[in-house]
Amino acid sequence: MAKVPILEALLNYINQNNAPFSMPGHKGGRGFLTTEEGRAFYNNIISGDITEVEGLDNLHKPEGIIKEAEELLSSFYGSKKSYFLVNGSTSGNLSMIFSAFNEGDKIIVERNCHRSIFNAIIMRKLRPIYIKNIVSKKYNAPFSLNMEHFIGTINENCDAKGIVITYPNYYGICCDLGAVVKEAKARNMTILVDSAHGAHFGISDMLPQNAVQLGADMVVMSAHKTLPSLTQTAYFHVNNDKNLKNINFYISAFMSTSPSYIFLAALDYARYFLEAHGKNEFEKVIVLADKYRELINGLENFHVICKQDLIEEFGEYNIDIDRSRFVINICENYNANEVLIYLKDKGVQAEMSDQHNIVFILSPFNTEEDLNKLYEALKECPLKSFSKEYSEVDINHIPEDSLIPCEVFDREREYVTIDSAVGKISAVSVVPYPPGVPIIMPGEKVDNEVLNVIQYCMANRISIMGIEDGMLQIVK
Amino acid sequence: MAKVPILEALLNYINQNNAPFSMPGHKGGRGFLTTEEGRAFYNNIISGDITEVEGLDNLHKPEGIIKEAEELLSSFYGSKKSYFLVNGSTSGNLSMIFSAFNEGDKIIVERNCHRSIFNAIIMRKLRPIYIKNIVSKKYNAPFSLNMEHFIGTINENCDAKGIVITYPNYYGICCDLGAVVKEAKARNMTILVDSAHGAHFGISDMLPQNAVQLGADMVVMSAHKTLPSLTQTAYFHVNNDKNLKNINFYISAFMSTSPSYIFLAALDYARYFLEAHGKNEFEKVIVLADKYRELINGLENFHVICKQDLIEEFGEYNIDIDRSRFVINICENYNANEVLIYLKDKGVQAEMSDQHNIVFILSPFNTEEDLNKLYEALKECPLKSFSKEYSEVDINHIPEDSLIPCEVFDREREYVTIDSAVGKISAVSVVPYPPGVPIIMPGEKVDNEVLNVIQYCMANRISIMGIEDGMLQIVK
Repeated sequence: MAKVPILEALLNYINQNNAPFSMPGHKGGRGFLTTEEGRAFYNNIISGDITEVEGLDNLHKPEGIIKEAEELLSSFYGSKKSYFLVNGSTSGNLSMIFSAFNEGDKIIVERNCHRSIFNAIIMRKLRPIYIKNIVSKKYNAPFSLNMEHFIGTINENCDAKGIVITYPNYYGICCDLGAVVKEAKARNMTILVDSAHGAHFGISDMLPQNAVQLGADMVVMSAHKTLPSLTQTAYFHVNNDKNLKNINFYISAFMSTSPSYIFLAALDYARYFLEAHGKNEFEKVIVLADKYRELINGLENFHVICKQDLIEEFGEYNIDIDRSRFVINICENYNANEVLIYLKDKGVQAEMSDQHNIVFILSPFNTEEDLNKLYEALKECPLKSFSKEYSEVDINHIPEDSLIPCEVFDREREYVTIDSAVGKISAVSVVPYPPGVPIIMPGEKVDNEVLNVIQYCMANRISIMGIEDGMLQIVK
Repeated sequence: MAKVPILEALLNYINQNNAPFSMPGHKGGRGFLTTEEGRAFYNNIISGDITEVEGLDNLHKPEGIIKEAEELLSSFYGSKKSYFLVNGSTSGNLSMIFSAFNEGDKIIVERNCHRSIFNAIIMRKLRPIYIKNIVSKKYNAPFSLNMEHFIGTINENCDAKGIVITYPNYYGICCDLGAVVKEAKARNMTILVDSAHGAHFGISDMLPQNAVQLGADMVVMSAHKTLPSLTQTAYFHVNNDKNLKNINFYISAFMSTSPSYIFLAALDYARYFLEAHGKNEFEKVIVLADKYRELINGLENFHVICKQDLIEEFGEYNIDIDRSRFVINICENYNANEVLIYLKDKGVQAEMSDQHNIVFILSPFNTEEDLNKLYEALKECPLKSFSKEYSEVDINHIPEDSLIPCEVFDREREYVTIDSAVGKISAVSVVPYPPGVPIIMPGEKVDNEVLNVIQYCMANRISIMGIEDGMLQIVK
C-alpha cells in the first residue's frame, strides 16, 4: 500500500476493535444499524455525498428539505429556531458570541469554557470576566460553577452584556442552569450555553433537563458526542430571536458554502432517532450503566462518581450529573492517564483522563459486552505497579491579567522557554487537550501554577496547544 | 419510514442514477473504487469516524499521522507549508484574509470572488477596491480578469496591502496569474488566491499550471470539487510564511475542534491519488472530453467553449481554460437553465447554469457512458420549445458604493420590497447561487441593473441569497 498515513492509522485503529467509550455517539457505526432509516444512511453514505443540486436545497438559504428538517429539529427541542451545523459546536460558539455581542463588550464567562469560546472572545474583541468552578477536593475535578463567585461576579459587573456557560461540563456535571438563567434575566444579560455534551438531555427523567428548556437565549449542542450522528456535526438553537439577522449572517459565514450532505443527513437522522427511540434507548443504557456502576464501585481501587457524591460534597449547589457517562476516580492518587493507557491495551477506549479521573462516554449503542470488558479490565488492573501522581496542579487557577486577550495581537511577540516565561505576559492560549480548557489566556501573566500544569502535561503525554517544542510565545 | 426529510431526498436522488457532471469529484463514490487504498476507505468509512484518541494525532496541533500527511501534501504541491481543511475552502478564505490583513487595510479584490471572501472582508473590516472581469460578448460569460482595469486599479491604489484573485473561475477559465503575481510582488502586495476549482492543476501539461507553482503567497483549493475527496474538504497552502503564527491561529479558529477523520482520510487519499495516478487519469479524461467536445460542437445548437474561442475573442489576455470542464453555450439565447432542467430529466446532472451557458465538471471518474448520455440528450433536446432569454442582465456590473461593507453592521436597517429599493443602500450582500458571486455588497447603492439581475434570478428559480420573500434589507 502506498503511503496514506491517516487512512492507514484509521484502518489499524478499526482493527483493534476496542470497546468504544469515546466519541462519537454512534460507536463505530452501530448507531446506524438499529433502524431501517439508519441502515439506509449507513449503506448509502458515499453515494449521498452530493452538492446543492436542484431538489436538495441550500443550507445557507434553506427553502426545501433542509428547512423542513430544521423545523423538525426546532419543534423537537422546543426552540424558536434551530440550525444544523457542519463545522461542529465550534461554529456555533463563534456564531452565538459574534451575534450576541459587539466589540468592546464586557461578558462574564465560565473559565472552564471550551477553546472555541475563547477564540471567539479574542476575535470579537470582548472583555472577559471569569467565573470560577468549584473543585472537588475528594476527586480532584472541576465539578460545577461556583455559585457564590458567580453571583458576586455578576453583581460587581452589572454592565456586562451577557454570560457564557458550559452545561454540562466534560465530566457530565451540570450546574444549576435554571438558577443561572434566572439571575441573568433579572439583570437583562443575554445567556449563551455551550451544551456540546448535552444534546441527549431532557429525553428522559433519568437525564438532566436540556438547556433549551431551561430558557437559555442561544444553545449549541454537538450531535456527534452522544447521539448517532457523525463527528463534526452540531445543532444550534435560538430561543430569543431579536438578533436573527446577525445570527443568520454569522452562522453562514463560519460554515462551508459546500456543506457535506453526509453530515446533514446524519444530523437529520440523529434528531429522528432521539425523537422516535431516544427515551427508551437512553433509559436502557442508563439502567445498564447503573448496574456496572455498582459493580465497579465494588472494586477496591475505582469509584464511579454519582449524584450522591456531589450531594455529599456540595449539597447546597443543586448540581446534577449525566448518568449515561462514567467518571471513574482512581484511588490513592495513582496516575489516571496510565490507567487509561492500560485500558486501551486491553481493548477499552476511554474518552479522556485528567490526573485522577477517567471519563467514559456511553451511548445507547454501548452493549453489556462493552461494559463487561471495562469491568474485567479494571478488576485485573495492576494498579500498584503504576506511578502515583503527587505533584498536584491547580486546574482551577486563573492567572492575573495584564492585557485583554485581543490586545495581544497587535504587540511584538517572542518565543521563550517555558521556565523562563514566569512573570511574562502570554501571547497565546495554552490549552491541554482534553479537556480543551485554557490554563492561561493571551494577556495573562505566567506564574508558577501555570508552569506546573504545563510541565505536568508535557510529562504525561497530554497534548497541550500553545507550547511549541517547549517554547511559549510571550509579549515582548 | 418516519419523516427524515434530508435522508429521504438523498436516497431518492441516488436512485435517479444520474450521469454525474456536478461536484464532488468522486462522482457518487466511483473515485474510491479504482485503487486498493480507495476501496479500504470506502468500505470502512463509518467505522473510521472516530475522535482524537491516542495514536490518531490532533488536527489543531499535528505531531503524528496528520503532520506526516500534511507534509506529504506540502511536498507534493511544492508549498512551504500545507494544511487540511475540514470546513471547506470557506475556512481557508477566511483564514488567509484574516492572517494577511489588518483592520482598515485597503485590498484589491476581483469582483468575481466567492461569497466567503466577501464575508471575510466584512468581518475583517477591510476596504475593498474591486477589479472587473472581461465579459465575453459572444458567450455572455465572465471570462477572466480585465488586465487593463487591474493594472490601472493597482497603480491608483499603491497603498493597498494585497490582492485577492480567483483562479480559475467557476467556468474553469484562468487569468494570467503569473502576470498578476509579478505585478503584485513588484508593488510589495500580498497575493492570495482562491483556487477552489484548481486542485488538479499542474498534474499534466494538458492542464493549466497550479497557483502554488505560480508563486501566490497563500492558496486555497477545494479537494472535493475535482479530486476524489468528500464534499467540504479543502487544502490550504502557504508559500510565504512570515505570518505563520497568525495563520495557525486563524486556521484553527475557523475549523471544528472535533474534526471529521472521515474528511481527513479523504483529504489524505485525494493527495495520494493525485500523486500516484493523477497525471495518467486526468489525461485520459481530457482525451475523452476532447472527443465529446468535437461531437457536441458538431450539433447545431450547442458549443463547448475551448481555448481557441478565448484566443479569438481576447487574444491579448493570455487566458487559459480547464480542459476537464465543459462550458456549453446554448445558441440563439435559448434559456440555459431550461436546458439544465431538461438534461436532469434525462438523467444528466450538470453543475450549474447561467442564462446562456451550462457548466459540467468532469473528473477521472466520468466514463464514456456518461459523456455519451450527455451527447445523446443534447442531440434530442427540443430546444425550439424552450423560451428565449432576451432580458440581458449585466453580470459584471458594480454598483456605486456609499459605505464600506463593515460599516453597515452598525446602522439602523429595514426591509423594503426590491422594486422600492432602487436608490437605497443595501445592508446585505445579494448573491445568486450558483455561481456565488455577489451582485451587490453591503454599503452599495441598489440601481436598475441590480434590480434586473434579482428579478431575473427570481423568475428563473435561481437561488438568491440576501432576498427574503421578495424583500431586501437596506440601510435606513
